[in-house]
Amino acid sequence: MSLIEDLNWRHACKAYDPTKKVSQDDLNKIVEAARLAPTSSGLQPFKVIVLKDSELRDQIAPTALNADCVRECSHILVFAAWDRYTAERIDTVYDLTTDVRDLPRGRFVNYTDKLKEMYLDEAADANFAHIARQTYIALGLALAQAAELKIDSTPAEGFDNAAVDRVLGLQELGLKSVSLMYIGYADKERDWLAPMKKVRQPLEEFVVEM
Amino acid sequence: MSLIEDLNWRHACKAYDPTKKVSQDDLNKIVEAARLAPTSSGLQPFKVIVLKDSELRDQIAPTALNADCVRECSHILVFAAWDRYTAERIDTVYDLTTDVRDLPRGRFVNYTDKLKEMYLDEAADANFAHIARQTYIALGLALAQAAELKIDSTPAEGFDNAAVDRVLGLQELGLKSVSLMYIGYADKERDWLAPMKKVRQPLEEFVVEM
Repeated sequence: MSLIEDLNWRHACKAYDPTKKVSQDDLNKIVEAARLAPTSSGLQPFKVIVLKDSELRDQIAPTALNADCVRECSHILVFAAWDRYTAERIDTVYDLTTDVRDLPRGRFVNYTDKLKEMYLDEAADANFAHIARQTYIALGLALAQAAELKIDSTPAEGFDNAAVDRVLGLQELGLKSVSLMYIGYADKERDWLAPMKKVRQPLEEFVVEM
Repeated sequence: MSLIEDLNWRHACKAYDPTKKVSQDDLNKIVEAARLAPTSSGLQPFKVIVLKDSELRDQIAPTALNADCVRECSHILVFAAWDRYTAERIDTVYDLTTDVRDLPRGRFVNYTDKLKEMYLDEAADANFAHIARQTYIALGLALAQAAELKIDSTPAEGFDNAAVDRVLGLQELGLKSVSLMYIGYADKERDWLAPMKKVRQPLEEFVVEM
């Protein structure tokens, strides 16, 4: 199937069958799509938490809009962004870049100096706003990958970010939760959105040609 | 090819062949992938500007980090977000939703009331921050769609947003530019990034299992 067919196939699943689990192979592909996502200056300023533990999920459930999905889906991916850009984080990424490409470390020092100048003195909020945006590219690609595999998924905001950060100990990892993605297999009886038509802005309103 | 193969194939193209144009059919598919992107509460709070006009592009070029790409790529997609959530915009989306699904208008009034309560009194910055994030889901899917078609592309931030908004008259449309996406066919001589290895965080660092 093409990407467009996959995107038409998917919807935000509203109820999962708790007895059906996503295979490790399929889970790996979904994570890999997120890992391959492009990000600003290639910094990849986030991690993906793969959450299976049912006790942690029970603690998160009441803070989310769809508590049953949190408990009943197969896995939850937590897109957890760097709390801010730091010199050390930028250098670590570019050291990896030069190492992988067999270039001398420091080869991109002019560029990393520019990044540091731009980000390190920036207010924490503005800094994090830029970082958080990058995670949505990966979220989109992970949703597309799940659809390619005919795995149901739900992108979720609207949970208590501070509570999730606390339950998962994200602050100690220098991370802040941005979005959740539930994956699994729909409970077709209870997934009320499944039979409804997908709604999108008509093309002629969505696009402006100049 | 699979999505993962497509994502491995793509890179941020650094130079385009100005003589090669993306076909209307392929352009439509890239826009369609963006249109099908999921967004928070299904609000789709953005439009895609398809920019061909060379005079407008000349005006934008000096404000971007990669002026030659702006001038030489086949088309530019501008991801232009709503400047803020409004009651009218929310109602328009949900009127469309009920119309498409043959439901009575107002059927989701409890939900739209909640959205209005959440967004309408929110500070402009926080409001726009949430809107802007949504556009990155669509950017990611448009990049994936270009890759599926073996069309080169470049996601771009780091341009002068205010200048782009002014040149394109976005304020009058109630929009603000968030990101650009260049599409076209690489000039293989000048596209220095093409032969370099893709670099991503190793899987074991990218993923945290809990």
